[in-house]
Amino acid sequence: MIETDIIIIGAGPCGLFTVFEAGLLKLKCHLIDALPIPGGQCAEIYPKKPIYDIPGYPSVLAGELVDNLMSQIEPFNPGFTLGERVERVEKQDDGSFLVTSSGGTIHKAPVVAIAGGLGCFEPRKPPVQHITEFEGKGIDYIVKDPEKYRGKDVVISGGGDSALDWSIFLASGVAKSVSLVHRRSSFKGHPDSVDKVFDLSKNGRLNLITDAEVKSIDGNGSLSSIGIKHKTQGEVTVNTDYWLPLFGLSPSLGPIADWGLNISKNSIEVDTYDYSTNIPGIFAIGDINTYPGKLKLILCGFHEATLMVQSAFKIVYPDKKLSFKYTTVMGGIDGFK
Amino acid sequence: MIETDIIIIGAGPCGLFTVFEAGLLKLKCHLIDALPIPGGQCAEIYPKKPIYDIPGYPSVLAGELVDNLMSQIEPFNPGFTLGERVERVEKQDDGSFLVTSSGGTIHKAPVVAIAGGLGCFEPRKPPVQHITEFEGKGIDYIVKDPEKYRGKDVVISGGGDSALDWSIFLASGVAKSVSLVHRRSSFKGHPDSVDKVFDLSKNGRLNLITDAEVKSIDGNGSLSSIGIKHKTQGEVTVNTDYWLPLFGLSPSLGPIADWGLNISKNSIEVDTYDYSTNIPGIFAIGDINTYPGKLKLILCGFHEATLMVQSAFKIVYPDKKLSFKYTTVMGGIDGFK
Repeated sequence: MIETDIIIIGAGPCGLFTVFEAGLLKLKCHLIDALPIPGGQCAEIYPKKPIYDIPGYPSVLAGELVDNLMSQIEPFNPGFTLGERVERVEKQDDGSFLVTSSGGTIHKAPVVAIAGGLGCFEPRKPPVQHITEFEGKGIDYIVKDPEKYRGKDVVISGGGDSALDWSIFLASGVAKSVSLVHRRSSFKGHPDSVDKVFDLSKNGRLNLITDAEVKSIDGNGSLSSIGIKHKTQGEVTVNTDYWLPLFGLSPSLGPIADWGLNISKNSIEVDTYDYSTNIPGIFAIGDINTYPGKLKLILCGFHEATLMVQSAFKIVYPDKKLSFKYTTVMGGIDGFK
Repeated sequence: MIETDIIIIGAGPCGLFTVFEAGLLKLKCHLIDALPIPGGQCAEIYPKKPIYDIPGYPSVLAGELVDNLMSQIEPFNPGFTLGERVERVEKQDDGSFLVTSSGGTIHKAPVVAIAGGLGCFEPRKPPVQHITEFEGKGIDYIVKDPEKYRGKDVVISGGGDSALDWSIFLASGVAKSVSLVHRRSSFKGHPDSVDKVFDLSKNGRLNLITDAEVKSIDGNGSLSSIGIKHKTQGEVTVNTDYWLPLFGLSPSLGPIADWGLNISKNSIEVDTYDYSTNIPGIFAIGDINTYPGKLKLILCGFHEATLMVQSAFKIVYPDKKLSFKYTTVMGGIDGFK
């Protein structure tokens, strides 16, 4: 079990800077992130994109900002549990929290700071009845190993690059049959991919069904057929081994939504005094929180982290007096070994 | 008359960054500062001192931070009135404000943002009755031209470098007589200066009165005598042309204190929704404001500036809809010519 003062859920810029402000108050931190590297969206989604609204940086690459934050917190030697999504938070009788992540790692601390950004990115699920009952039993939202579909009948839904690319790949000698269902007649994906799909359809290697949507699913234990409703021609039932609804990913709070926190529009409600949630000892900072006037900006998360650790200190050390000192006056950073 | 969207009082880091966030919303800014250069305390008091708590900067010289902020706001081409202290703010019938600075410059805008830091630095005045009546009439808190005291009887109060240095200078053939009054027997100033003062006292060129304080003053129109109370020996009256209480400078709100703003402990009370004051259209950001949980840190001022300009936009353009865009998504900064 990993014990620390503050468990920080999310290792994006805001979570990382929390380590620094906590360190100034002699509080130790441990960060947990589903991604395999620190930096959150900045590191994963747009490391090479410049950001222009970090104060004091006319322009900085997102990846550089993460590197600089990692250097800034280095004296405070934070712990990391990376590549694991946080699953459970349990309050103990002594007031501390046990936080369990997907790899089974257990973390314990008197304070939990949720700095989860936009949350996890989860597949967009179409509104079809009983869809969750067939997940992994014929319905996949993400293609992890295409070999799974070799020699099978596969129906793909979607109009973007993911649906087009997998249709092309699976129709090229992998699946027994491939049908691509799209609710419009035009596609959003790369024009070159669209051309390829139309070619495959002309050559009879792909069954292209446009202006249509999958409206029902059926099967005994696992998927055996789907109902496809065409705009003008009514619904037909098609036998299939797999249905792959590839509608992209959307941000989601994930398991955090079930922890009893007050949630509003997919964000955690906080008090701007110290960005505390409705559960004492749990705080939420950065893009994942909401309050009147909230702006989802990195610089706002920095401010929230800084005010938050003041209250965290009082929880960790209820009897100690907090003395506020400027780093410029201190003459340097006195980190942990 | 200078017309703009937001008049920013104070050109410290927080005031400067306001120009950037306002610029993103297409709002123009004009900054006014009593100092002759932008940067506030960072530029004036500690340009060569490193700061460690600016997010993304493991260490940055205060002067460098100011330079970087100046580069960041350059596309938005802000106006500056430097070397002038703001004296008056008057609300006009059309809802706009007229702001007059000490050089007589008049500025007009629908929004005023006070980013005045710790305010002006004013001399610390000892608690002696009627002291203000003799200011400039025998009592000076700052030595501007030492020639003024040539051939005169001068009493200096204080235990720091300013009191020591001017005692040494005036006792070296300038003033007719110099008395140095200090309420302790030891001095806080530079040891070398302390030695010099004791030497001058031994040689009969300076009258050193320790463990004593000036408690009263008298004169007809201008100062003629002061009452010095010794810890153990009672009070004596001493005739003098000048009394120079040199107790250093302390931050003060200056004229801002008289504008009808709600003030608490020398700071302006604000609503954390948008850092608005009790006067609609006037905001206060950075070290000069106060609210529950307030920390006087530069990074907090950056956050406050950012939320503040959202409300400023609604005042400047009551009928326009504000669309919030990320600079990373915009792909660059679209400034003003």
